[in-house]
Amino acid sequence: MTLETLSENRCFGGVQGVHRHRSEVCACDMTFGLYLPPQAAAGPVPLLWYLSGLTCTHENAMTKGGFQEHAARHGLAVIFPDTSPRGESVADDPAYDLGQGAGFYVNATRAPWDAHFRMYDYVLTELRGLVMAAFPLADRHGITGHSMGGHGALTLALRNPEMFASLSAFAPIAHPVRSDWGRKQLGAYLGEDESAWAGHDSVLLLEERGWHGDILVDQGTADDFLDLLMPEALAGAMARRRQPGQFRLQPGYDHSYFFVSSFAADHVAWHAERLGPGRAPMRA
Amino acid sequence: MTLETLSENRCFGGVQGVHRHRSEVCACDMTFGLYLPPQAAAGPVPLLWYLSGLTCTHENAMTKGGFQEHAARHGLAVIFPDTSPRGESVADDPAYDLGQGAGFYVNATRAPWDAHFRMYDYVLTELRGLVMAAFPLADRHGITGHSMGGHGALTLALRNPEMFASLSAFAPIAHPVRSDWGRKQLGAYLGEDESAWAGHDSVLLLEERGWHGDILVDQGTADDFLDLLMPEALAGAMARRRQPGQFRLQPGYDHSYFFVSSFAADHVAWHAERLGPGRAPMRA
Repeated sequence: MTLETLSENRCFGGVQGVHRHRSEVCACDMTFGLYLPPQAAAGPVPLLWYLSGLTCTHENAMTKGGFQEHAARHGLAVIFPDTSPRGESVADDPAYDLGQGAGFYVNATRAPWDAHFRMYDYVLTELRGLVMAAFPLADRHGITGHSMGGHGALTLALRNPEMFASLSAFAPIAHPVRSDWGRKQLGAYLGEDESAWAGHDSVLLLEERGWHGDILVDQGTADDFLDLLMPEALAGAMARRRQPGQFRLQPGYDHSYFFVSSFAADHVAWHAERLGPGRAPMRA
Repeated sequence: MTLETLSENRCFGGVQGVHRHRSEVCACDMTFGLYLPPQAAAGPVPLLWYLSGLTCTHENAMTKGGFQEHAARHGLAVIFPDTSPRGESVADDPAYDLGQGAGFYVNATRAPWDAHFRMYDYVLTELRGLVMAAFPLADRHGITGHSMGGHGALTLALRNPEMFASLSAFAPIAHPVRSDWGRKQLGAYLGEDESAWAGHDSVLLLEERGWHGDILVDQGTADDFLDLLMPEALAGAMARRRQPGQFRLQPGYDHSYFFVSSFAADHVAWHAERLGPGRAPMRA
């Protein structure tokens, strides 16, 4: 697989790269950002996955989230995947919350979406394999994300606990099978049989399976989208499951990157504690 | 003067606001960002001015610079002015480096620019007066900026030392009277008589007047615009003047916000040390 480096910028002593590659899974070119901290120069470092929300590309959190400063301090790499397949030949919808920019981290099974919209496999298999082969990364992964990306982080990790050692989310879409941020998209991508949706709902997955570690969730109390995110369903599921973790309601914060960046330090530290620092190989 | 608040987002325990007002000086509506740290809830805090570079609005550094985290820690407010007057009735030029987005922090004296392009007076007098009256700010000011905004920070402070207690710059346009980033704009805004330009050149001002404190300048060694910025002229002027301060060449960094954000913590701390922290009033 060929990786084309579109840009590299020195950042907090490491390198913020943007790379493009042909995706076989999504059948289009895909772009992602990867921050390598200074510790990566000395040996493999753990990787934190940051999945973004509706309308975002790889770029939003990479430029506005402020993760690099904390990742450099802790010796974590951070990857910023795109949120959907893209291109003129890729299906789309006029609405901001369906189609390009709104992949919802599922493998679509219904036309016209099934030709390209396979973000679940793309993130877990293709992109993961690609970056593990191409960059100095240890095989220790954490995952987080914001809004639709928080949904992605929770669902991907809960379904694949062996692949992730740490898990957190910022204002996740928690209960998509009961929300207009979910029913529309899961119906379009997976069809009207709701039994296929349950595997992509954090509340249902958490109640059924739990999580082997502890989970950190931050949610602003002034978020304009509380009715769509349904944080109370996730908090309830954590409590019913007696799931170790912290569900933090942050007073006055909204849904913006001003919220995400305010708690980025906490989340990076959370993952670093559970992943272990980047370990430099022994020198001769 | 009426201030219209366009947005307020909770951010690192404080508030990132965006405000619009009618500018008499620029004869158009102007928009700026103002970050108030949590300490501002208890009493007036010092104010750090951040002047942005070519093509920027109030928004770029506000969303990409990462200043709020450090300002919250140190108890400083940070203001992000726009870089020029704007609007359909405001003169412009097809080039990115002249007209709207490229005010160069001067008062234009030549048509068509003189009707609106008065960023020098706008920043120093009108905007300063407006925010001092409207927000819980102490009358202690520091100033910094990036690229064209670094030029603005240095020239405004060197000409008005009584107005600023601390001074720094990121990759400033250091010697505009000898650079294509400068000769074109100063000629357009101030006319072809170069004697009028000298008062807007950091190298000439520093050699002539010096600065009452110490100055911090960061410049990336991999900056694509070194020939236009002329950092060696500024470093030379600091040395010839025996100006206290630090001129730091940062290896591998370029001209982007990945560079600015990497050193934002150092600059905010620099200003905080010289401005003093936000002081809460005595409680009864």
